[in-house]
Amino acid sequence: MINVILLGFGNVNSHLLRAFSESEEAAVIQVFNRSKIDLNTLNDIPFTSQLSELKDADVYIIGIADDAIASFSEKLANQNKLVVHTSGSAAIDVLSANNRRGVFYLLQTFSKQQKVNFQKIPICIEAENKTDLKLLQKLGKAISNNVVEVSSIKRARLHLAAVFVNNFVNYMYQIGSEILKEDELSFNLLQPLIAETASKIKTLSPSEAQTGPAKRNDKKTIEKHLHLLESEAHKKIYKLITAQLTQKYGKEL
Amino acid sequence: MINVILLGFGNVNSHLLRAFSESEEAAVIQVFNRSKIDLNTLNDIPFTSQLSELKDADVYIIGIADDAIASFSEKLANQNKLVVHTSGSAAIDVLSANNRRGVFYLLQTFSKQQKVNFQKIPICIEAENKTDLKLLQKLGKAISNNVVEVSSIKRARLHLAAVFVNNFVNYMYQIGSEILKEDELSFNLLQPLIAETASKIKTLSPSEAQTGPAKRNDKKTIEKHLHLLESEAHKKIYKLITAQLTQKYGKEL
Repeated sequence: MINVILLGFGNVNSHLLRAFSESEEAAVIQVFNRSKIDLNTLNDIPFTSQLSELKDADVYIIGIADDAIASFSEKLANQNKLVVHTSGSAAIDVLSANNRRGVFYLLQTFSKQQKVNFQKIPICIEAENKTDLKLLQKLGKAISNNVVEVSSIKRARLHLAAVFVNNFVNYMYQIGSEILKEDELSFNLLQPLIAETASKIKTLSPSEAQTGPAKRNDKKTIEKHLHLLESEAHKKIYKLITAQLTQKYGKEL
Repeated sequence: MINVILLGFGNVNSHLLRAFSESEEAAVIQVFNRSKIDLNTLNDIPFTSQLSELKDADVYIIGIADDAIASFSEKLANQNKLVVHTSGSAAIDVLSANNRRGVFYLLQTFSKQQKVNFQKIPICIEAENKTDLKLLQKLGKAISNNVVEVSSIKRARLHLAAVFVNNFVNYMYQIGSEILKEDELSFNLLQPLIAETASKIKTLSPSEAQTGPAKRNDKKTIEKHLHLLESEAHKKIYKLITAQLTQKYGKEL
Protein backbone atom coordinates (compact mmCIF):
# COMPACT_ATOMS: atom_id res chain seq x y z
CA MET A 1 0.00 0.00 0.00
CA ILE A 2 1.38 3.38 -1.03
CA ASN A 3 0.63 6.16 1.44
CA VAL A 4 -0.06 9.53 -0.12
CA ILE A 5 -0.46 13.04 1.24
CA LEU A 6 -2.16 15.63 -0.93
CA LEU A 7 -0.77 19.16 -0.67
CA GLY A 8 -3.37 21.62 -1.88
CA PHE A 9 -6.93 20.73 -2.76
CA GLY A 10 -7.78 22.20 -6.15
CA ASN A 11 -9.28 20.40 -9.14
CA VAL A 12 -6.50 17.89 -9.68
CA ASN A 13 -5.99 16.83 -6.07
CA SER A 14 -9.69 16.59 -5.32
CA HIS A 15 -10.10 14.25 -8.29
CA LEU A 16 -7.03 12.31 -7.19
CA LEU A 17 -8.54 11.87 -3.74
CA ARG A 18 -11.60 10.27 -5.25
CA ALA A 19 -9.55 8.04 -7.55
CA PHE A 20 -7.21 6.83 -4.80
CA SER A 21 -10.13 6.14 -2.48
CA GLU A 22 -11.41 3.61 -5.03
CA SER A 23 -8.01 1.95 -5.34
CA GLU A 24 -6.61 -0.82 -3.16
CA GLU A 25 -2.96 -0.12 -3.85
CA ALA A 26 -2.82 3.48 -2.68
CA ALA A 27 -4.38 5.47 0.15
CA VAL A 28 -4.54 9.16 0.93
CA ILE A 29 -3.64 9.46 4.62
CA GLN A 30 -3.81 13.26 4.93
CA VAL A 31 -4.84 16.37 3.04
CA PHE A 32 -3.11 19.70 3.52
CA ASN A 33 -4.59 22.99 2.35
CA ARG A 34 -3.73 26.53 3.39
CA SER A 35 -7.36 27.43 3.87
CA LYS A 36 -10.10 25.25 5.37
CA ILE A 37 -12.02 23.05 2.93
CA ASP A 38 -15.41 21.35 3.04
CA LEU A 39 -14.67 18.34 5.23
CA ASN A 40 -17.56 16.39 3.68
CA THR A 41 -15.49 16.01 0.54
CA LEU A 42 -12.70 14.28 2.47
CA ASN A 43 -14.41 11.03 3.50
CA ASP A 44 -12.91 11.15 7.00
CA ILE A 45 -9.36 11.63 5.78
CA PRO A 46 -7.39 13.78 8.27
CA PHE A 47 -7.02 17.40 7.25
CA THR A 48 -4.47 20.00 8.25
CA SER A 49 -3.65 23.56 7.33
CA GLN A 50 -0.28 23.42 9.14
CA LEU A 51 2.77 22.17 7.29
CA SER A 52 4.34 21.32 10.65
CA GLU A 53 1.61 18.72 11.17
CA LEU A 54 2.35 16.74 8.02
CA LYS A 55 2.53 13.00 8.61
CA ASP A 56 4.98 10.51 7.26
CA ALA A 57 4.05 9.27 3.74
CA ASP A 58 5.58 7.61 0.70
CA VAL A 59 4.58 10.32 -1.78
CA TYR A 60 3.58 13.98 -1.31
CA ILE A 61 1.55 15.32 -4.23
CA ILE A 62 1.54 19.09 -4.76
CA GLY A 63 -1.58 20.33 -6.54
CA ILE A 64 -1.29 24.13 -6.58
CA ALA A 65 -0.76 26.90 -9.18
CA ASP A 66 2.44 26.53 -11.24
CA ASP A 67 3.84 29.82 -10.02
CA ALA A 68 3.58 28.78 -6.37
CA ILE A 69 5.23 25.35 -6.64
CA ALA A 70 8.83 26.51 -6.15
CA SER A 71 8.31 28.56 -3.00
CA PHE A 72 5.84 26.08 -1.53
CA SER A 73 8.17 23.10 -1.97
CA GLU A 74 10.91 25.13 -0.34
CA LYS A 75 8.83 25.29 2.85
CA LEU A 76 8.52 21.51 3.21
CA ALA A 77 10.79 19.96 5.83
CA ASN A 78 14.03 18.55 4.48
CA GLN A 79 13.41 14.84 5.05
CA ASN A 80 14.47 13.16 1.82
CA LYS A 81 10.83 12.43 0.96
CA LEU A 82 9.43 11.96 -2.56
CA VAL A 83 7.64 15.20 -3.43
CA VAL A 84 5.95 15.48 -6.83
CA HIS A 85 4.03 18.20 -8.61
CA THR A 86 1.15 17.73 -11.04
CA SER A 87 1.86 20.52 -13.52
CA GLY A 88 2.02 20.02 -17.27
CA SER A 89 4.29 22.91 -17.98
CA ALA A 90 6.57 23.24 -14.93
CA ALA A 91 9.88 21.35 -15.10
CA ILE A 92 10.81 18.81 -12.42
CA ASP A 93 13.53 21.12 -11.08
CA VAL A 94 11.20 23.93 -10.05
CA LEU A 95 10.74 21.72 -6.99
CA SER A 96 13.10 22.37 -4.10
CA ALA A 97 16.04 19.98 -3.89
CA ASN A 98 15.34 19.66 -0.15
CA ASN A 99 13.51 16.43 -0.94
CA ARG A 100 13.50 13.79 -3.70
CA ARG A 101 11.68 15.23 -6.71
CA GLY A 102 9.17 13.89 -9.20
CA VAL A 103 6.22 14.71 -11.48
CA PHE A 104 2.77 13.13 -11.61
CA TYR A 105 0.95 14.91 -14.45
CA LEU A 106 -2.60 13.88 -15.39
CA LEU A 107 -3.22 14.67 -19.04
CA GLN A 108 -6.90 15.52 -18.63
CA THR A 109 -9.21 18.47 -18.04
CA PHE A 110 -10.98 18.57 -14.69
CA SER A 111 -14.01 20.44 -13.44
CA LYS A 112 -15.10 20.16 -9.84
CA GLN A 113 -18.57 19.20 -11.01
CA GLN A 114 -17.75 16.37 -13.36
CA LYS A 115 -16.50 12.90 -12.54
CA VAL A 116 -14.03 11.48 -15.05
CA ASN A 117 -12.97 7.94 -15.82
CA PHE A 118 -9.41 7.65 -14.55
CA GLN A 119 -8.66 4.30 -16.18
CA LYS A 120 -7.83 5.90 -19.53
CA ILE A 121 -6.15 9.11 -18.36
CA PRO A 122 -2.50 9.23 -19.39
CA ILE A 123 -0.39 9.83 -16.28
CA CYS A 124 2.98 11.29 -17.21
CA ILE A 125 5.58 10.52 -14.59
CA GLU A 126 9.13 11.69 -14.08
CA ALA A 127 11.64 11.13 -11.29
CA GLU A 128 15.36 11.52 -10.59
CA ASN A 129 16.13 7.84 -9.97
CA LYS A 130 14.80 4.41 -10.88
CA THR A 131 13.38 3.59 -7.46
CA ASP A 132 11.25 6.71 -7.38
CA LEU A 133 10.19 6.15 -10.97
CA LYS A 134 9.04 2.64 -10.07
CA LEU A 135 7.11 3.96 -7.10
CA LEU A 136 5.34 6.57 -9.26
CA GLN A 137 4.63 3.91 -11.86
CA LYS A 138 2.97 1.78 -9.20
CA LEU A 139 1.08 4.77 -7.88
CA GLY A 140 -0.12 5.68 -11.37
CA LYS A 141 -1.18 2.12 -12.12
CA ALA A 142 -3.27 2.13 -8.96
CA ILE A 143 -5.67 4.47 -10.77
CA SER A 144 -4.93 4.33 -14.52
CA ASN A 145 -3.95 1.84 -17.22
CA ASN A 146 -2.00 4.49 -19.07
CA VAL A 147 1.17 5.46 -17.16
CA VAL A 148 4.03 6.82 -19.27
CA GLU A 149 7.46 8.16 -18.46
CA VAL A 150 7.82 11.63 -20.00
CA SER A 151 10.74 14.06 -19.58
CA SER A 152 10.13 17.68 -18.52
CA ILE A 153 10.88 18.92 -22.04
CA LYS A 154 8.47 16.51 -23.72
CA ARG A 155 5.84 17.14 -21.07
CA ALA A 156 5.96 20.87 -21.79
CA ARG A 157 5.19 20.14 -25.43
CA LEU A 158 2.43 17.73 -24.49
CA HIS A 159 0.91 20.49 -22.38
CA LEU A 160 1.20 22.92 -25.29
CA ALA A 161 -0.56 20.46 -27.61
CA ALA A 162 -3.21 20.02 -24.90
CA VAL A 163 -3.87 23.76 -24.96
CA PHE A 164 -4.76 23.48 -28.65
CA VAL A 165 -6.95 20.36 -28.43
CA ASN A 166 -8.65 21.38 -25.19
CA ASN A 167 -8.60 25.14 -24.44
CA PHE A 168 -8.67 26.32 -28.04
CA VAL A 169 -11.16 23.67 -29.13
CA ASN A 170 -13.42 24.77 -26.32
CA TYR A 171 -13.10 28.35 -27.54
CA MET A 172 -14.35 27.17 -30.96
CA TYR A 173 -17.35 25.68 -29.12
CA GLN A 174 -17.88 29.07 -27.50
CA ILE A 175 -17.90 30.83 -30.84
CA GLY A 176 -20.32 28.25 -32.28
CA SER A 177 -22.59 28.79 -29.31
CA GLU A 178 -22.46 32.58 -29.72
CA ILE A 179 -23.29 32.38 -33.43
CA LEU A 180 -26.38 30.30 -32.66
CA LYS A 181 -27.47 32.55 -29.81
CA GLU A 182 -27.88 35.46 -32.19
CA ASP A 183 -30.50 33.39 -33.98
CA GLU A 184 -31.92 31.61 -30.94
CA LEU A 185 -30.91 28.20 -32.20
CA SER A 186 -30.12 25.59 -29.55
CA PHE A 187 -26.46 24.71 -29.03
CA ASN A 188 -27.66 21.13 -28.54
CA LEU A 189 -28.13 20.87 -32.30
CA LEU A 190 -24.33 20.88 -32.56
CA GLN A 191 -23.72 18.17 -29.95
CA PRO A 192 -23.82 15.14 -32.30
CA LEU A 193 -21.44 16.91 -34.68
CA ILE A 194 -19.07 17.79 -31.84
CA ALA A 195 -19.11 14.20 -30.57
CA GLU A 196 -18.49 12.77 -34.04
CA THR A 197 -15.67 15.26 -34.72
CA ALA A 198 -13.89 14.06 -31.57
CA SER A 199 -14.65 10.42 -32.28
CA LYS A 200 -13.55 10.45 -35.93
CA ILE A 201 -9.90 10.95 -35.08
CA LYS A 202 -9.75 7.68 -33.20
CA THR A 203 -9.63 5.97 -36.60
CA LEU A 204 -8.54 8.77 -38.97
CA SER A 205 -5.58 11.10 -38.53
CA PRO A 206 -6.66 14.75 -37.98
CA SER A 207 -5.24 15.53 -41.40
CA GLU A 208 -7.38 12.85 -43.08
CA ALA A 209 -10.44 13.91 -41.09
CA GLN A 210 -10.29 17.53 -42.27
CA THR A 211 -13.27 18.70 -44.33
CA GLY A 212 -15.02 22.01 -45.03
CA PRO A 213 -15.05 25.06 -47.31
CA ALA A 214 -11.50 26.15 -46.38
CA LYS A 215 -10.02 22.79 -47.31
CA ARG A 216 -11.90 22.83 -50.63
CA ASN A 217 -11.03 26.51 -51.11
CA ASP A 218 -14.76 27.08 -51.70
CA LYS A 219 -14.54 30.86 -52.05
CA LYS A 220 -18.28 31.42 -52.41
CA THR A 221 -19.13 29.77 -49.10
CA ILE A 222 -16.20 31.46 -47.36
CA GLU A 223 -17.45 34.86 -48.57
CA LYS A 224 -20.95 34.05 -47.39
CA HIS A 225 -19.66 33.08 -43.95
CA LEU A 226 -17.59 36.24 -43.55
CA HIS A 227 -20.66 38.22 -44.45
CA LEU A 228 -22.75 36.38 -41.85
CA LEU A 229 -20.25 36.83 -39.02
CA GLU A 230 -21.17 39.80 -36.87
CA SER A 231 -18.34 39.75 -34.36
CA GLU A 232 -15.01 41.20 -35.48
CA ALA A 233 -13.21 38.77 -33.17
CA HIS A 234 -14.93 35.77 -34.78
CA LYS A 235 -14.13 37.14 -38.24
CA LYS A 236 -10.43 37.32 -37.39
CA ILE A 237 -10.41 33.70 -36.26
CA TYR A 238 -12.34 32.59 -39.33
CA LYS A 239 -9.96 34.38 -41.69
CA LEU A 240 -6.76 33.17 -40.07
CA ILE A 241 -7.73 29.50 -39.84
CA THR A 242 -9.27 29.52 -43.31
CA ALA A 243 -6.11 31.05 -44.79
CA GLN A 244 -3.95 28.41 -43.14
CA LEU A 245 -6.18 25.52 -44.19
CA THR A 246 -6.49 26.81 -47.76
CA GLN A 247 -2.73 27.16 -48.01
CA LYS A 248 -2.09 23.78 -46.48
CA TYR A 249 -4.46 21.78 -48.66
CA GLY A 250 -3.86 23.94 -51.71
CA LYS A 251 -0.26 22.80 -51.65
CA GLU A 252 -1.21 19.17 -51.26
CA LEU A 253 -3.67 19.06 -54.18
CA MET B 1 -43.64 3.85 -47.60
CA ILE B 2 -41.85 6.91 -48.99
CA ASN B 3 -40.02 6.27 -52.25
CA VAL B 4 -36.77 8.13 -52.64
CA ILE B 5 -34.34 8.66 -55.51
CA LEU B 6 -30.82 9.77 -54.71
CA LEU B 7 -29.26 12.19 -57.20
CA GLY B 8 -25.48 12.08 -56.87
CA PHE B 9 -23.59 9.61 -54.72
CA GLY B 10 -21.09 11.49 -52.58
CA ASN B 11 -20.61 11.22 -48.81
CA VAL B 12 -24.07 12.39 -47.78
CA ASN B 13 -26.13 10.33 -50.22
CA SER B 14 -24.10 7.18 -49.72
CA HIS B 15 -24.72 7.46 -45.96
CA LEU B 16 -28.40 8.19 -46.62
CA LEU B 17 -28.66 5.05 -48.74
CA ARG B 18 -27.42 2.97 -45.84
CA ALA B 19 -29.72 4.68 -43.35
CA PHE B 20 -32.85 4.33 -45.53
CA SER B 21 -32.05 0.68 -46.23
CA GLU B 22 -32.35 0.02 -42.49
CA SER B 23 -35.66 1.87 -42.27
CA GLU B 24 -39.12 0.47 -42.88
CA GLU B 25 -40.79 3.78 -43.68
CA ALA B 26 -38.62 4.84 -46.61
CA ALA B 27 -36.94 3.08 -49.50
CA VAL B 28 -34.40 4.19 -52.07
CA ILE B 29 -35.74 2.97 -55.42
CA GLN B 30 -33.02 4.38 -57.68
CA VAL B 31 -29.61 6.04 -57.57
CA PHE B 32 -28.46 8.49 -60.22
CA ASN B 33 -24.86 9.52 -60.67
CA ARG B 34 -23.14 11.15 -63.64
CA SER B 35 -20.27 8.69 -63.52
CA LYS B 36 -20.47 4.95 -62.79
CA ILE B 37 -20.16 3.92 -59.15
CA ASP B 38 -19.21 0.68 -57.43
CA LEU B 39 -22.45 -1.32 -57.75
CA ASN B 40 -21.56 -3.41 -54.69
CA THR B 41 -22.31 -0.40 -52.53
CA LEU B 42 -25.87 -0.19 -53.87
CA ASN B 43 -27.38 -3.42 -52.49
CA ASP B 44 -29.20 -4.20 -55.76
CA ILE B 45 -30.83 -0.78 -56.00
CA PRO B 46 -31.22 0.23 -59.68
CA PHE B 47 -28.59 2.67 -60.90
CA THR B 48 -28.65 5.10 -63.80
CA SER B 49 -26.38 7.76 -65.20
CA GLN B 50 -29.13 9.14 -67.49
CA LEU B 51 -31.53 11.78 -66.12
CA SER B 52 -34.04 10.70 -68.78
CA GLU B 53 -34.27 7.29 -67.07
CA LEU B 54 -35.31 8.65 -63.66
CA LYS B 55 -38.28 6.79 -62.18
CA ASP B 56 -41.26 8.18 -60.40
CA ALA B 57 -40.63 8.88 -56.70
CA ASP B 58 -41.97 10.86 -53.74
CA VAL B 59 -38.75 12.70 -52.98
CA TYR B 60 -35.62 13.35 -55.04
CA ILE B 61 -32.55 14.07 -52.90
CA ILE B 62 -29.71 16.01 -54.50
CA GLY B 63 -26.34 15.30 -52.91
CA ILE B 64 -23.81 17.21 -55.01
CA ALA B 65 -21.47 20.21 -54.58
CA ASP B 66 -23.26 23.45 -53.57
CA ASP B 67 -22.13 25.25 -56.71
CA ALA B 68 -23.68 22.64 -58.98
CA ILE B 69 -27.14 22.45 -57.36
CA ALA B 70 -28.75 25.27 -59.35
CA SER B 71 -27.80 24.12 -62.83
CA PHE B 72 -28.36 20.45 -62.00
CA SER B 73 -31.88 21.03 -60.66
CA GLU B 74 -32.63 23.02 -63.82
CA LYS B 75 -32.02 19.87 -65.88
CA LEU B 76 -34.60 17.79 -64.04
CA ALA B 77 -37.89 17.30 -65.92
CA ASN B 78 -40.64 19.71 -64.96
CA GLN B 79 -43.04 17.31 -63.23
CA ASN B 80 -44.05 19.06 -60.03
CA LYS B 81 -42.00 16.61 -57.95
CA LEU B 82 -40.50 17.30 -54.54
CA VAL B 83 -36.78 17.94 -55.10
CA VAL B 84 -34.60 18.68 -52.09
CA HIS B 85 -30.94 19.47 -51.61
CA THR B 86 -28.76 18.51 -48.66
CA SER B 87 -26.58 21.59 -48.37
CA GLY B 88 -26.06 23.51 -45.14
CA SER B 89 -25.26 26.81 -46.74
CA ALA B 90 -27.31 26.95 -49.98
CA ALA B 91 -30.76 28.56 -49.70
CA ILE B 92 -33.86 26.65 -50.72
CA ASP B 93 -34.32 28.90 -53.76
CA VAL B 94 -31.08 27.93 -55.46
CA LEU B 95 -33.19 24.98 -56.60
CA SER B 96 -35.01 25.39 -59.90
CA ALA B 97 -38.68 26.32 -59.58
CA ASN B 98 -39.45 23.65 -62.18
CA ASN B 99 -40.35 21.33 -59.32
CA ARG B 100 -41.50 21.65 -55.69
CA ARG B 101 -38.50 22.60 -53.56
CA GLY B 102 -37.17 21.57 -50.20
CA VAL B 103 -34.10 21.03 -48.04
CA PHE B 104 -32.96 17.94 -46.15
CA TYR B 105 -29.76 18.95 -44.35
CA LEU B 106 -27.95 16.48 -42.09
CA LEU B 107 -26.01 18.35 -39.44
CA GLN B 108 -23.15 15.89 -39.24
CA THR B 109 -19.70 15.21 -40.69
CA PHE B 110 -19.39 12.18 -42.94
CA SER B 111 -16.42 10.19 -44.13
CA LYS B 112 -16.89 7.34 -46.56
CA GLN B 113 -15.00 5.02 -44.21
CA GLN B 114 -16.93 5.64 -41.01
CA LYS B 115 -20.44 4.56 -40.13
CA VAL B 116 -22.38 7.04 -38.01
CA ASN B 117 -25.39 6.64 -35.77
CA PHE B 118 -28.25 8.37 -37.59
CA GLN B 119 -30.69 8.30 -34.67
CA LYS B 120 -29.20 11.42 -33.08
CA ILE B 121 -28.28 13.40 -36.19
CA PRO B 122 -30.29 16.63 -36.42
CA ILE B 123 -32.04 16.72 -39.79
CA CYS B 124 -32.92 20.29 -40.73
CA ILE B 125 -35.84 20.39 -43.12
CA GLU B 126 -37.43 23.18 -45.10
CA ALA B 127 -40.21 23.23 -47.70
CA GLU B 128 -42.51 25.68 -49.46
CA ASN B 129 -45.78 24.24 -48.20
CA LYS B 130 -47.15 22.27 -45.27
CA THR B 131 -47.74 19.04 -47.18
CA ASP B 132 -44.15 18.87 -48.34
CA LEU B 133 -42.90 19.80 -44.88
CA LYS B 134 -44.92 16.92 -43.42
CA LEU B 135 -43.51 14.54 -45.99
CA LEU B 136 -39.93 15.60 -45.19
CA GLN B 137 -40.69 15.29 -41.48
CA LYS B 138 -41.85 11.73 -42.03
CA LEU B 139 -38.84 10.99 -44.18
CA GLY B 140 -36.49 12.44 -41.57
CA LYS B 141 -38.15 10.50 -38.76
CA ALA B 142 -37.63 7.31 -40.73
CA ILE B 143 -33.92 7.59 -39.89
CA SER B 144 -33.52 10.08 -37.02
CA ASN B 145 -35.21 11.14 -33.78
CA ASN B 146 -34.09 14.71 -34.25
CA VAL B 147 -35.94 16.38 -37.15
CA VAL B 148 -36.25 20.17 -36.96
CA GLU B 149 -37.72 22.77 -39.26
CA VAL B 150 -35.07 25.41 -40.00
CA SER B 151 -35.31 28.33 -42.42
CA SER B 152 -32.61 28.95 -45.05
CA ILE B 153 -31.27 31.94 -43.10
CA LYS B 154 -31.00 30.05 -39.83
CA ARG B 155 -29.56 27.01 -41.58
CA ALA B 156 -26.78 29.15 -43.04
CA ARG B 157 -25.84 30.25 -39.52
CA LEU B 158 -26.03 26.70 -38.24
CA HIS B 159 -23.64 25.69 -41.00
CA LEU B 160 -21.32 28.55 -40.07
CA ALA B 161 -21.33 27.45 -36.42
CA ALA B 162 -20.64 23.90 -37.62
CA VAL B 163 -17.52 25.12 -39.43
CA PHE B 164 -16.17 26.35 -36.09
CA VAL B 165 -17.05 23.29 -33.99
CA ASN B 166 -16.08 20.76 -36.68
CA ASN B 167 -13.63 22.06 -39.32
CA PHE B 168 -11.78 24.49 -37.07
CA VAL B 169 -11.77 22.12 -34.09
CA ASN B 170 -10.28 19.47 -36.34
CA TYR B 171 -7.60 21.95 -37.36
CA MET B 172 -6.73 22.39 -33.67
CA TYR B 173 -6.35 18.59 -33.52
CA GLN B 174 -4.00 18.81 -36.52
CA ILE B 175 -1.84 21.40 -34.80
CA GLY B 176 -1.75 19.30 -31.61
CA SER B 177 -0.68 16.32 -33.66
CA GLU B 178 2.06 18.30 -35.42
CA ILE B 179 3.44 19.63 -32.12
CA LEU B 180 3.75 16.09 -30.80
CA LYS B 181 5.30 14.76 -34.00
CA GLU B 182 8.29 17.05 -33.54
CA ASP B 183 8.96 15.21 -30.30
CA GLU B 184 7.81 11.77 -31.41
CA LEU B 185 5.06 11.64 -28.83
CA SER B 186 1.96 9.63 -29.75
CA PHE B 187 -1.18 11.58 -30.65
CA ASN B 188 -3.09 8.86 -28.80
CA LEU B 189 -1.96 10.44 -25.53
CA LEU B 190 -4.35 13.31 -26.33
CA GLN B 191 -7.39 11.13 -27.10
CA PRO B 192 -8.85 10.97 -23.57
CA LEU B 193 -8.48 14.76 -23.26
CA ILE B 194 -10.16 15.31 -26.64
CA ALA B 195 -13.03 13.01 -25.71
CA GLU B 196 -13.52 14.69 -22.33
CA THR B 197 -13.38 18.18 -23.89
CA ALA B 198 -16.23 17.23 -26.23
CA SER B 199 -18.16 15.44 -23.49
CA LYS B 200 -17.86 18.21 -20.89
CA ILE B 201 -20.09 20.59 -22.82
CA LYS B 202 -23.05 18.21 -22.59
CA THR B 203 -23.43 19.40 -19.00
CA LEU B 204 -21.50 22.69 -18.90
CA SER B 205 -21.85 25.61 -21.31
CA PRO B 206 -18.70 26.14 -23.42
CA SER B 207 -18.14 29.36 -21.51
CA GLU B 208 -18.24 27.56 -18.14
CA ALA B 209 -16.03 24.76 -19.47
CA GLN B 210 -13.21 27.12 -20.52
CA THR B 211 -9.89 26.60 -18.74
CA GLY B 212 -6.23 27.20 -19.49
CA PRO B 213 -3.42 29.76 -19.31
CA ALA B 214 -5.17 32.29 -21.58
CA LYS B 215 -8.28 32.37 -19.40
CA ARG B 216 -6.13 32.83 -16.28
CA ASN B 217 -3.92 35.33 -18.14
CA ASP B 218 -0.96 33.24 -16.97
CA LYS B 219 1.69 35.25 -18.81
CA LYS B 220 4.60 33.04 -17.81
CA THR B 221 3.08 29.90 -19.33
CA ILE B 222 1.94 31.80 -22.41
CA GLU B 223 5.50 33.07 -22.96
CA LYS B 224 6.86 29.57 -22.52
CA HIS B 225 4.39 28.20 -25.08
CA LEU B 226 5.22 30.88 -27.66
CA HIS B 227 8.87 30.04 -27.20
CA LEU B 228 8.20 26.32 -27.72
CA LEU B 229 6.14 26.78 -30.89
CA GLU B 230 8.32 26.28 -33.94
CA SER B 231 5.77 26.94 -36.69
CA GLU B 232 4.96 30.58 -37.47
CA ALA B 233 1.43 29.52 -38.48
CA HIS B 234 0.84 27.83 -35.11
CA LYS B 235 2.22 30.87 -33.32
CA LYS B 236 -0.26 33.15 -35.07
CA ILE B 237 -3.19 30.95 -34.03
CA TYR B 238 -1.90 30.74 -30.47
CA LYS B 239 -1.51 34.50 -30.19
CA LEU B 240 -4.89 35.38 -31.67
CA ILE B 241 -6.96 32.93 -29.62
CA THR B 242 -5.01 33.72 -26.45
CA ALA B 243 -5.56 37.46 -26.94
CA GLN B 244 -9.31 36.94 -27.40
CA LEU B 245 -9.62 34.64 -24.39
CA THR B 246 -7.57 36.93 -22.19
CA GLN B 247 -9.67 39.89 -23.19
CA LYS B 248 -12.92 38.01 -22.74
CA TYR B 249 -12.23 36.64 -19.29
CA GLY B 250 -10.27 39.69 -18.19
CA LYS B 251 -13.44 41.71 -18.62
CA GLU B 252 -15.53 39.24 -16.69
CA LEU B 253 -13.24 39.03 -13.67
